[in-house]
Amino acid sequence: MKFGIIGASGRLGSEVVKLFNEKDHQKVFAYDLNGEWKNDKPEILIDCSLPMVFDKTIGYACDFNIPFVIATTGLTDNNLELIKSYSNKFPIVQSYNYSVGIQVLLKLTETASAKLPDWDVEITETHHRFKKDKPSGTAKMIKKIFIGKEINTSSHRLGNVPGDHAVSFGGLGEVLTISHRALSRRTFAEGILLSAEFVIKKRSGFYSFTDVVFTK
Amino acid sequence: MKFGIIGASGRLGSEVVKLFNEKDHQKVFAYDLNGEWKNDKPEILIDCSLPMVFDKTIGYACDFNIPFVIATTGLTDNNLELIKSYSNKFPIVQSYNYSVGIQVLLKLTETASAKLPDWDVEITETHHRFKKDKPSGTAKMIKKIFIGKEINTSSHRLGNVPGDHAVSFGGLGEVLTISHRALSRRTFAEGILLSAEFVIKKRSGFYSFTDVVFTK
Amino acid sequence: MKFGIIGASGRLGSEVVKLFNEKDHQKVFAYDLNGEWKNDKPEILIDCSLPMVFDKTIGYACDFNIPFVIATTGLTDNNLELIKSYSNKFPIVQSYNYSVGIQVLLKLTETASAKLPDWDVEITETHHRFKKDKPSGTAKMIKKIFIGKEINTSSHRLGNVPGDHAVSFGGLGEVLTISHRALSRRTFAEGILLSAEFVIKKRSGFYSFTDVVFTK
Amino acid sequence: MKFGIIGASGRLGSEVVKLFNEKDHQKVFAYDLNGEWKNDKPEILIDCSLPMVFDKTIGYACDFNIPFVIATTGLTDNNLELIKSYSNKFPIVQSYNYSVGIQVLLKLTETASAKLPDWDVEITETHHRFKKDKPSGTAKMIKKIFIGKEINTSSHRLGNVPGDHAVSFGGLGEVLTISHRALSRRTFAEGILLSAEFVIKKRSGFYSFTDVVFTK
Repeated sequence: MKFGIIGASGRLGSEVVKLFNEKDHQKVFAYDLNGEWKNDKPEILIDCSLPMVFDKTIGYACDFNIPFVIATTGLTDNNLELIKSYSNKFPIVQSYNYSVGIQVLLKLTETASAKLPDWDVEITETHHRFKKDKPSGTAKMIKKIFIGKEINTSSHRLGNVPGDHAVSFGGLGEVLTISHRALSRRTFAEGILLSAEFVIKKRSGFYSFTDVVFTK
Repeated sequence: MKFGIIGASGRLGSEVVKLFNEKDHQKVFAYDLNGEWKNDKPEILIDCSLPMVFDKTIGYACDFNIPFVIATTGLTDNNLELIKSYSNKFPIVQSYNYSVGIQVLLKLTETASAKLPDWDVEITETHHRFKKDKPSGTAKMIKKIFIGKEINTSSHRLGNVPGDHAVSFGGLGEVLTISHRALSRRTFAEGILLSAEFVIKKRSGFYSFTDVVFTK
Repeated sequence: MKFGIIGASGRLGSEVVKLFNEKDHQKVFAYDLNGEWKNDKPEILIDCSLPMVFDKTIGYACDFNIPFVIATTGLTDNNLELIKSYSNKFPIVQSYNYSVGIQVLLKLTETASAKLPDWDVEITETHHRFKKDKPSGTAKMIKKIFIGKEINTSSHRLGNVPGDHAVSFGGLGEVLTISHRALSRRTFAEGILLSAEFVIKKRSGFYSFTDVVFTK
Repeated sequence: MKFGIIGASGRLGSEVVKLFNEKDHQKVFAYDLNGEWKNDKPEILIDCSLPMVFDKTIGYACDFNIPFVIATTGLTDNNLELIKSYSNKFPIVQSYNYSVGIQVLLKLTETASAKLPDWDVEITETHHRFKKDKPSGTAKMIKKIFIGKEINTSSHRLGNVPGDHAVSFGGLGEVLTISHRALSRRTFAEGILLSAEFVIKKRSGFYSFTDVVFTK
């Protein structure tokens, strides 16, 4: 694929460029703090920037009018509405978490919660000491699965742990646990590549990363 | 329910009697080393005995002609054939493992293996030092899910651990683990109760414990 | 050993009697809800009763004037003062937790906390859903090791887990965890046997279970 | 500290330079694939190179005649003998593993093995799928602690896990586990910094990283 990338030099953006290069995809367009760089028309556009440049980002997306993968976090409801409206023109994948493993964990948690309705549930998340918000966004996503159930969530802050999550189900006589551990940011770059391969075949529509992982 | 039980005084049998009593079910028939005891006609028959008394067991099942739950392990193929043929007359649940959590673990493992085909897989089981066979029967059931894939299984023997099982999936950048831990035999008694409640509503047919947990 | 036991028919007491019998020690005296039973003069006295019968317990201890192991929990400061004063006459072991593994965990935690002073620390305890107090007494014992340090403690309530404890140390780049898991009450009976074997050789003095495990 | 570094541009070397810079130590000498660079006389010399340039390395060490920290792995017995003989002239720290957490794990394992001689032991190590040797060098170091005891070691190969190690002790009724997880190479750079701060105060002598962590 010939790809364009917004936020090319950021922490996630540079990881994306590195992975796409390894897989022989060609970077033909980039925009970041150093300005704009263009070599050819891209077939797909990736956004790893920040919400503060959203107007610029959406402008590029409309100009190119090609499949679009958005990994920027902290978007407003208005931003999301705008994205959805543009998905009639070109296909879009949008998610706040591009880890395949977390998507699978969410799916497994749904199954387990349906099959073990009377079991106790505990959610635990562990992150680096620099993370201020508790619990993590992913822990909140897990919690949301248990509609109408009071769930305890424990947050641990330890050294520079990239991100662990666990859901434990306890019955009388047994405990079932689903746990996930992120090793590095590369995993998110892989999720973005998967989304690019998915969305490049679509004509239009708004997709989540869950769709990417589970619709195949 | 008015229940009958074969192997009433064994380790699993006495746990079943205890749990059924707690739930206000009445024991009206029992057979064990002390002989036969009968108070009334049972509505359901539970078998927690040994394969060596299988003829006696199947005799009672035919006489009563009522829903039947079999928890005896180590049955022969002939035994199982016979059971299946009788399931045309009265409904039967048969399984070697009545833990709900293990059934859910197997289901989750199927989903994860389908969604993460390229990830590495490691199976680990830990049991008490007295367990001679390696790997455990449950570890073998887990392994069977990964058709055509070479899977490493590690067996640990530690103190008197009742039984732990874990399946780990490793991708480049993340690890997903599904793990189960048995705390006591009570969990198997609960699985048998669940099976009794399931099968008592059936007219005939042969069911596994997987059917019980997932058909509801 | 010829042993006497107070609280012989309680949950812990009956586990103690069972283990001591297995090891060919003879029960020659017992006191419980059914009253007093005596066959011979004991060489050692074990207390697995409740604080409400403390006066009776201490009365027996004085009459026998033999080595004494106290496993009753919830004693008052006055009770403990009295025990200490009697330890001039006969040797006494007193503890709220007779698990060898927990004693080792406490020891290891002391070493780790001294060697890793700048690392983050997280304590986690998991117990059955029926346990009302949070955090567990053992978690408090662990926390006490970290003098002058703010430590987060997470309490999980899951099914009927007998008792898990973990201390995690997180540095920049690594995580070290010490964890313990109780499988059954038998472990406490074993700690009481160890204490009996320790204290029967003493002439007098007040000992903790830590002394028993680490003075040998 | 003014430091010199051999292997400055390697994976570990560049991590060391980065950390030392953060802590306001000045790089005044470097040697790597790009050749030699010198700005001033170093107060301490760090070796993060490969055994194939050992002669060059030891030549620099002799010329500078200053405290020396060696992190190169795979040295021969002859190399080590030579290093030890030079430690009469200038102080040297040599180790194959500069993780503080692993040193603490080894120490804790020694204590636990002494206190729990009859308990079962299981060692587990998990590393990335690219690691060919089984078990890991660190797992072998752990195993060596249990003199005259048959210990089972399980090796897991999962994705790109940097390195997990666990030692579990199982008694009848409880399980105690000491586990360690490396998050990144930075941890080794920190161990090298600690060693530099330790050895710069010495006049001569040969030290292991265990000495650095536990002699303080």
